[in-house]
Amino acid sequence: MAYKVKVFVTLKESVIDPQGAAATKAIQKMGYTSIKEVRVGKLIELQVEEIDGDLSATIDDICKKLLVNQEVEDYSFEIEEVAAQ
Amino acid sequence: MAYKVKVFVTLKESVIDPQGAAATKAIQKMGYTSIKEVRVGKLIELQVEEIDGDLSATIDDICKKLLVNQEVEDYSFEIEEVAAQ
Repeated sequence: MAYKVKVFVTLKESVIDPQGAAATKAIQKMGYTSIKEVRVGKLIELQVEEIDGDLSATIDDICKKLLVNQEVEDYSFEIEEVAAQ
Repeated sequence: MAYKVKVFVTLKESVIDPQGAAATKAIQKMGYTSIKEVRVGKLIELQVEEIDGDLSATIDDICKKLLVNQEVEDYSFEIEEVAAQ
């Protein structure tokens, strides 16, 4: 069995997001004033082959140790089975 | 009615992703050799207030003109209704 994992990394609410603020301004200048706030996070996609053990625990470990800075970021992930290649 | 929109931006398959390649190597060094490929994209979240017209068309326009470089990136988005603040 192979898997595709999507990790969603977002800045914590309390953290200022200059990139998002710039996007918000640019969108409002386009005339779309209904767009009130934009925040920019990361979408990290992992291709996983046959794995021994708990994939969910593995992904969580990778997030905590490598992909996510928990001081300023939150994360969640989805695991999807895909046909092995 | 208010909305939360999530835009998922990913590099096209044909485009090299150095950041993803670096993450793949780092993960494999951690011993997780089942992780075969990592690709890093963006998750852009927009807060939308009451809007006249077609929100989906608005978001599509914003993606094409501002958020996404269609030469090298693909995108999709989800619109979710939320309680107005």
